Amino acid sequence: MGHKMKCHICEISEQKDDPYLIFETDFWRVLLSYNQRYLGRCYIFSKRHFGSISDITEEENADFFRVVKKIENAIKKTFGATMFNWSCLMNDFYKEEIPDPHVHWHMKPRYKNKILFDGKIFEDKEFGHHYSRDDKNVATKEFCAKIVEEIKKNL
Amino acid sequence: MGHKMKCHICEISEQKDDPYLIFETDFWRVLLSYNQRYLGRCYIFSKRHFGSISDITEEENADFFRVVKKIENAIKKTFGATMFNWSCLMNDFYKEEIPDPHVHWHMKPRYKNKILFDGKIFEDKEFGHHYSRDDKNVATKEFCAKIVEEIKKNL
Repeated sequence: MGHKMKCHICEISEQKDDPYLIFETDFWRVLLSYNQRYLGRCYIFSKRHFGSISDITEEENADFFRVVKKIENAIKKTFGATMFNWSCLMNDFYKEEIPDPHVHWHMKPRYKNKILFDGKIFEDKEFGHHYSRDDKNVATKEFCAKIVEEIKKNL
Repeated sequence: MGHKMKCHICEISEQKDDPYLIFETDFWRVLLSYNQRYLGRCYIFSKRHFGSISDITEEENADFFRVVKKIENAIKKTFGATMFNWSCLMNDFYKEEIPDPHVHWHMKPRYKNKILFDGKIFEDKEFGHHYSRDDKNVATKEFCAKIVEEIKKNL
């Protein structure tokens, strides 16, 4: 990794017309994950570059929980998710010699029942258990755009 | 599991003089985990019985982030943790036919360097990677009480 590069989350945040963007607020951006093993899986990125949820401001914090409610509600309406796994991990940043983490959350909808969307069946085989870390279910950009459009109808 | 039992988190919350209790606020209780694979690993239990972070109140939410700052700061001071993994999963509750989840958070301190505490060496071999789900590192009640006392000095 030789020389210092720009934070990749800050870079994503500057993209115009990002097809993965579901919605944004003053402080947070909600993007669909490329990994759709759990249908509707999202990232929630802070707009400000800071490294730990200990450093969140009161405004960012109050806004974050509005974001939680909005996205959980939309995914329930759209796909009938049963519940949600939330995490703020940030381990990858600490592979660097001088870590420069950027706060983001992982949101994984979990499903008791199978769902059919756009001709594909999604089954949460480990429902009731810790999420799988299998990262191989990469959805195409076109399929992700369909999911985003569907969720947007229910925001 | 035949008949409905009382929520086990509500039960824990009613315990007097719980040796695992690090501190509490009006809305949250911070308890040391029995699993000390990651030294200082904690649970943060909501005092109110509710099932999803979508249902958090503004007051509970504002207070939660004060709790985050306080416990992260104390664990850094006490053991020199490098960073923290946070998650709100609640999968286990969904093994029941009629789930009755109780919001709680998992906090796992992560360590770049080895630490020596009370004659034991702790090494976070997967630092920079997802936390291990190995649940075998059960610390004795006595050892947990020592950890709790040490953290309390730095609250």
